Amino acid sequence: MVKQERAARTRQALIRAAAEVFAEEGFALASLSMISRRAGVSNGALHFHFESKKALADVVQMEAAAAVTRMTDRAETADGALQVLVDATHGLMSRLADDNIVRAGFELCGDPARGDGVDLRRQWQHWIENILGRAEQEGLLADGVSPDSAAPAIVAATVGFEVLGFRDPEWLSEQKIIRFWELLLPRLAGGEA
Amino acid sequence: MVKQERAARTRQALIRAAAEVFAEEGFALASLSMISRRAGVSNGALHFHFESKKALADVVQMEAAAAVTRMTDRAETADGALQVLVDATHGLMSRLADDNIVRAGFELCGDPARGDGVDLRRQWQHWIENILGRAEQEGLLADGVSPDSAAPAIVAATVGFEVLGFRDPEWLSEQKIIRFWELLLPRLAGGEA
Repeated sequence: MVKQERAARTRQALIRAAAEVFAEEGFALASLSMISRRAGVSNGALHFHFESKKALADVVQMEAAAAVTRMTDRAETADGALQVLVDATHGLMSRLADDNIVRAGFELCGDPARGDGVDLRRQWQHWIENILGRAEQEGLLADGVSPDSAAPAIVAATVGFEVLGFRDPEWLSEQKIIRFWELLLPRLAGGEA
Repeated sequence: MVKQERAARTRQALIRAAAEVFAEEGFALASLSMISRRAGVSNGALHFHFESKKALADVVQMEAAAAVTRMTDRAETADGALQVLVDATHGLMSRLADDNIVRAGFELCGDPARGDGVDLRRQWQHWIENILGRAEQEGLLADGVSPDSAAPAIVAATVGFEVLGFRDPEWLSEQKIIRFWELLLPRLAGGEA
């Protein structure tokens, strides 16, 4: 039992270390020995848990996807689909700023060396499209605004904040997202929201 | 003279090939032999023109920056700063879709293996901030909208289109940008634009 706990802790340390190394170096330059060194475990211990760099990237992205889903699930307890949307964009930015696994999970989506894996940006896009559909059903969208017309701008802007935030964390600040919604929300909700 | 022309043509073929290889493989996995093979020249010819992969990436990004500046200069001949802004976003997307040097130049900005180089996204951000300043001076912005409040959303959205467009060219289509401006312009310009 104690042994199992230790193994679980080592596995988690490896995932965390991998996320940091992927975010800093990119997938191509990240090496298994960098990752095991960062986690403070032997190469042998790494290979016991993960067979390859790809396997580690897969797990980082799956854990990032799960963290984003937990965040959107929590956001969905708010009243009204537009409030849910605003809360979730704040939630995503704060996780990108604070959680290396979420940050690396997204960054790997744009890494040409990485190939496939969970596409977190697409998962986020689908979530935005769904919540805007709900906003429309709830009668919250302004005249002439539809989920189809609004989703691309919101998806693109949040992906832009994500990408720019890797180089300059200021882009992930609460202030930036507040301003974004001050600009867009009156147009989305017809000025009454 | 003929020799000089041939050298200039070889150099340009190498820059074009480098842009393609950088965009497909990322900076870390791109190799000089991939690039010379793609350009149809010998390794020796490559080394005659460029001393390293970094030197090639520097030139790709400088040429991309020059192409973006030519595009914004042309856009600036339009009447009114908001029309200039709209035209330039269309111009950027069509260049990202059609010009491998511009595409690679931007993609290298987000590549963790690439380190420094011309930051095209920052150049674009400065241009957006300037043109919104001009729009404000021309009295074109709606009440309560300032360059500071509008620029981040426009910069982030266009960077988002750029990044999403690498995986799915649909994001760079004219239709996507038209919709973006249909959503945002009435808010930016107070509904009269």
